[in-house]
Amino acid sequence: MKHQEIRITREELERFCSAVFSKLGLSQADAQTAARVLVAADVRGIPSHGVARLRRYVNGLQTGLMRADAEPRVVAESPASIVVDAGGAMGAPVSVQTMQRVIAKAREAGSAFGTVRDSNHFGIAGYYAMLALAEDMIGIAMSNTAALGVPTFGRQVMFGTNPLAFAAPADRHRAFVLDMSTTAVPRGKVEVYARKSEEMPAGWAVDRDGRPTTDAASLLQDMFKRVGGGLLPLGGVGEEHGGHKGYGLAVMVDVLCALLSGGPFGTAVFDTAESSARVSHFFGAIRIDRFRDPGEFRRDMDRMLEQLSQCPPAAGQERVFFAGQKEFEHEAECVRTGVPLMADTYAELEKIGCELRVARV
Amino acid sequence: MKHQEIRITREELERFCSAVFSKLGLSQADAQTAARVLVAADVRGIPSHGVARLRRYVNGLQTGLMRADAEPRVVAESPASIVVDAGGAMGAPVSVQTMQRVIAKAREAGSAFGTVRDSNHFGIAGYYAMLALAEDMIGIAMSNTAALGVPTFGRQVMFGTNPLAFAAPADRHRAFVLDMSTTAVPRGKVEVYARKSEEMPAGWAVDRDGRPTTDAASLLQDMFKRVGGGLLPLGGVGEEHGGHKGYGLAVMVDVLCALLSGGPFGTAVFDTAESSARVSHFFGAIRIDRFRDPGEFRRDMDRMLEQLSQCPPAAGQERVFFAGQKEFEHEAECVRTGVPLMADTYAELEKIGCELRVARV
Repeated sequence: MKHQEIRITREELERFCSAVFSKLGLSQADAQTAARVLVAADVRGIPSHGVARLRRYVNGLQTGLMRADAEPRVVAESPASIVVDAGGAMGAPVSVQTMQRVIAKAREAGSAFGTVRDSNHFGIAGYYAMLALAEDMIGIAMSNTAALGVPTFGRQVMFGTNPLAFAAPADRHRAFVLDMSTTAVPRGKVEVYARKSEEMPAGWAVDRDGRPTTDAASLLQDMFKRVGGGLLPLGGVGEEHGGHKGYGLAVMVDVLCALLSGGPFGTAVFDTAESSARVSHFFGAIRIDRFRDPGEFRRDMDRMLEQLSQCPPAAGQERVFFAGQKEFEHEAECVRTGVPLMADTYAELEKIGCELRVARV
Repeated sequence: MKHQEIRITREELERFCSAVFSKLGLSQADAQTAARVLVAADVRGIPSHGVARLRRYVNGLQTGLMRADAEPRVVAESPASIVVDAGGAMGAPVSVQTMQRVIAKAREAGSAFGTVRDSNHFGIAGYYAMLALAEDMIGIAMSNTAALGVPTFGRQVMFGTNPLAFAAPADRHRAFVLDMSTTAVPRGKVEVYARKSEEMPAGWAVDRDGRPTTDAASLLQDMFKRVGGGLLPLGGVGEEHGGHKGYGLAVMVDVLCALLSGGPFGTAVFDTAESSARVSHFFGAIRIDRFRDPGEFRRDMDRMLEQLSQCPPAAGQERVFFAGQKEFEHEAECVRTGVPLMADTYAELEKIGCELRVARV
């Protein structure tokens, strides 16, 4: 049975989330930014990172795990770099501000990078990478997360799902936007199978002994109790299919986010009732015109993206996509017909609206 | 039956390769650099990129596909960027020169990037990334390659095995050095199974219809004839295990190497009898001290790498490694006992020595 779906305009949804964040103490500007990033996930067809998470943000702000009154402070700065201590703030506003500063620095320096420490979940990494596109820059964004991933040949979680995003502008096409976790799958996919009490595909996770497992429910319990087991890196178990590469990419993200900012890394990043995960982020921007004419670059990007789209599909498949293409198509549909929300997500938003006395969407 | 192994000192092997390259017209400096990069692959335990490839380089230089007299020229430059047209030169010397200029620029600018177009196979990407380590910088190196990889849901090759390398310095430990192709495996692994007439593991490649295949010999024939089929991206077939992520990473490497340099990309990169693959490279360096004290960074790196090494191993496994660790251990062994060469590789070196009248190793 298909779940009932409700469609709401992007603007309405942003207004509601912004009002919720304002009620919980965020400045108007920060509330709007946080709402925009959150809704962008639903608009791009990534509901796992969208308004379905609003309850967690509400909880975080109400309990103080996310500090509404945090004042992020710059702890190091140069013409091409910046390090920000978010002081336990929400992830999205400090991330947008930092990426904007990185872009401003790159305008002068050609390229620039910024890191943020003591932050919180920042939503979709692609949002920040894409801020560089309008400037004819390549955009980069990464974050470490609570440790959920097990290294190749290991049995204990040692790193997060550590997403990385990379955006490059095109001309007729919108852009190439890669936005991926560096584990084979994020935890959310395992949770879906646990809820349905179904076996999950092999190659996603290992159990407490480090052996491949398809038992989603036991895995989540073992991960919760930290007795071993966790998600496999991109490439799966062992080295035969390149699991050590995904493991390496996850650690690379941790190095750029946490080691370059002085934040906690590896197993020190985890959620408890007393503290947020205290995640770190990494942002970068590179001016294209320092290498070649941006117009030529964008037209070559068009040619590349068209060639990829025109790759003959495999038997039984209809289309070949490039990274970001599905998301842009989803966005275009949302502009026409509104942003789709599952009925239970919508009900939760209504509940939050009632509790906080914010006019419902 | 284990193949017979011969051990030769690194210095002898470098001297021999350098003499071979000199005989074929390279300047003494370029010949030494090319030899050093080539032998470094054997020293790091990556013989597929080591002196076993010397015959291909000899062929390339003798037929003029690699131009011994090419004079790489700078086509764009700024304080934090450089674009070099290699003019069909060997990959290694122009890559070392470009990475050194990138490092020099990063010293002033904080971070810098360089691209090279119209180049040739540059050996192991990690070599260039590691040049940044002694400067307390993070090093990055990438290359596109002849198209061998099939996009998710496709059936034709559209991108190369596109390696990326990332190096970050540690203190007591040497460094974290990720050096990986972005396909599940490189073509060489398929060739091993074809030679043995054995089935290769599922998840490495698809056939001409885009269906998973384990028939190595047919795959190589189909790829050679360009009738379809090729290597799968890291993450394997479809999206279930993240194949679309590996596909995205491969395209990201192509964007940074070829689109930022104005070189050929995607299916335009291939070897023929008349032209080399005309590959492009990307190099980057980021000063750590613009973010935090490099000593603190390196000590945190030590802590991270030790934690990863101490991860309890999975049942049946002995150790958990971090990226680059096996390679540094192999290097240490080579210093003690010499660089291991397969008997047939050694025989080929002797043959090359005879042909070119270079004193054998």
